[in-house]
Amino acid sequence: MASKNKGTRAERELLHKFYDTKSWICLRAPGSGSIPIPSPDLLAGNGHRYLAIECKSVKNDSKYLTKQEIDDLIFFAKKFGAEPWVGIRFDNIGWYFISPDDLKKSGKMYVVSLKFAESIGVKFEELIV
Amino acid sequence: MASKNKGTRAERELLHKFYDTKSWICLRAPGSGSIPIPSPDLLAGNGHRYLAIECKSVKNDSKYLTKQEIDDLIFFAKKFGAEPWVGIRFDNIGWYFISPDDLKKSGKMYVVSLKFAESIGVKFEELIV
Repeated sequence: MASKNKGTRAERELLHKFYDTKSWICLRAPGSGSIPIPSPDLLAGNGHRYLAIECKSVKNDSKYLTKQEIDDLIFFAKKFGAEPWVGIRFDNIGWYFISPDDLKKSGKMYVVSLKFAESIGVKFEELIV
Repeated sequence: MASKNKGTRAERELLHKFYDTKSWICLRAPGSGSIPIPSPDLLAGNGHRYLAIECKSVKNDSKYLTKQEIDDLIFFAKKFGAEPWVGIRFDNIGWYFISPDDLKKSGKMYVVSLKFAESIGVKFEELIV
């Protein structure tokens, strides 16, 4: 499956996961990377907490994120009034959510391996507590 | 201009108006009407207030909104933790924002005329105070 479709499918899956909780709801901004104004992939809220989420989907191994992606996420979240989160979906394993503060740099990029996500990230059920 | 393009252009204009304030930022959900989960056209926040906005653009005269559109807006806003607003852009005049509580019914639809918007609505500068 093309990378873009895979990403879209992952974002929609997460949108529905929030909806299924009955206490959260979520807005998706498709193609958020195509406009000049910083914008996360998803914004979720439950009346008390607000989450700005940059989503990534990965088959296995590691996912790289650019400094610009993370800077934009933090900029938007701070201005909007939301917690910034990177959500990464590993095939056959599921979602891990990582705070930008915890990301590790690899050269000019940030990198998230499955091992790193398992050790530092939180699962969906922990994110929404 | 086709109605859909006109609507998209109006939503983008409003997105930029929020961005230009420097204190608000806004997320746009293009084609929000096409997914089964209720979703407003725009979500704006400034770290203290959160606005869920259903946008309409009208050449002149009146704009009709369905009960479903308003119910969805209120449902999303309540769950997310945002104020629900209907934003209507009149050509050559600009934006008026109306609380769903103030909308008037015409048969099964809600209707907003320019005269009504001028009397009951607030301008952008008043909305973001």
